[in-house]
Parts: sequence; C-alpha cells; structure tokens
Amino acid sequence: MNFLAKIYVTLKASVLDPQGTTVTHALHAQNFLSVSDVRVGKYMEVTLSAQSKEEAATLVRDMCDQLLTNPVIETYTFELTEAQS
Amino acid sequence: MNFLAKIYVTLKASVLDPQGTTVTHALHAQNFLSVSDVRVGKYMEVTLSAQSKEEAATLVRDMCDQLLTNPVIETYTFELTEAQS
Repeated sequence: MNFLAKIYVTLKASVLDPQGTTVTHALHAQNFLSVSDVRVGKYMEVTLSAQSKEEAATLVRDMCDQLLTNPVIETYTFELTEAQS
Repeated sequence: MNFLAKIYVTLKASVLDPQGTTVTHALHAQNFLSVSDVRVGKYMEVTLSAQSKEEAATLVRDMCDQLLTNPVIETYTFELTEAQS
C-alpha cells in the first residue's frame, strides 16, 4: 500500500526564529501592522509504501528522527493518509 | 481578537522540486528504500489581530499573495484558529 505522509516541522518554542522575525518586519513594512508574530517551519510530503499504516508511521518517525528534522531545536508532527498506488 | 493562521506553501505539481529529489536520495542512502517521492514546502504560523475571522482570512490571503508565496510556482492553503490574546 502507498501512503502519503504530511510532515510539519517547527522550531521549538524556546528557540529564536530569526527568519520569522524578518518576515514579521517585512509584513509590517508592507502595512500588515496587525501581525504580531511569525514562526517559519518546514512542510514535507513523503510518498512511501508499507504493509500497514502502523509500519508507515514507524518509518516516518524514524526518517524524521534520523534525517528530516534536528531534534535538538525542532519538533514535528505528521498525518498519514492512504494514497493511490 | 487574535488569530493564528497556519499556512502551508507547496510547489505546484508541475514544478520540479530539486530539494525534494535530494531528500529522496538521502533517504535512500539511509536505507529508507520504500520512499518513492518527497516534495518540500514551507510552513508558517502567523499570529495576527482582526475584528472577525473573515477579516483575518482576507488579511492572510493578501499577505500570501503579496509577500509570503510566489504565485508563479507555489500554491498555499491555510487554517485559521482563534488564539488567546
């Protein structure tokens, strides 16, 4: 079975986000003054095959821990849906 | 009222994603051979104040069109939730 994993990676709340600060300033410069905060993260769509949803979830967790995220400063969540083969 | 907008930016399906290809190769090199495709996008959390959810949605759309995304090669979706002040 094929699965689509939508992975959301964000900086931990305690970690400074200079990219987000820059975007906030840029929005203010464009007159979006109601914006008080921006945090920038990553979004990944991974297509993978696995025997079951549980196996797919385990694989996605392993990928995130080993390669896709930096566990020191980032956290992640993901959603798994079955995809057409 | 304060709102939190979760914005997901992805490359259009017709646009090549070299970063995603690189991640796919890296995953294969780490023995995640069941991965067939990776697309990399951006994820942003924007905190803003507005009178109503409709006004907030209009603001977020304007921000995305004018600054946060490149409408030539990217598409976006967003979710709005009310946040604590």
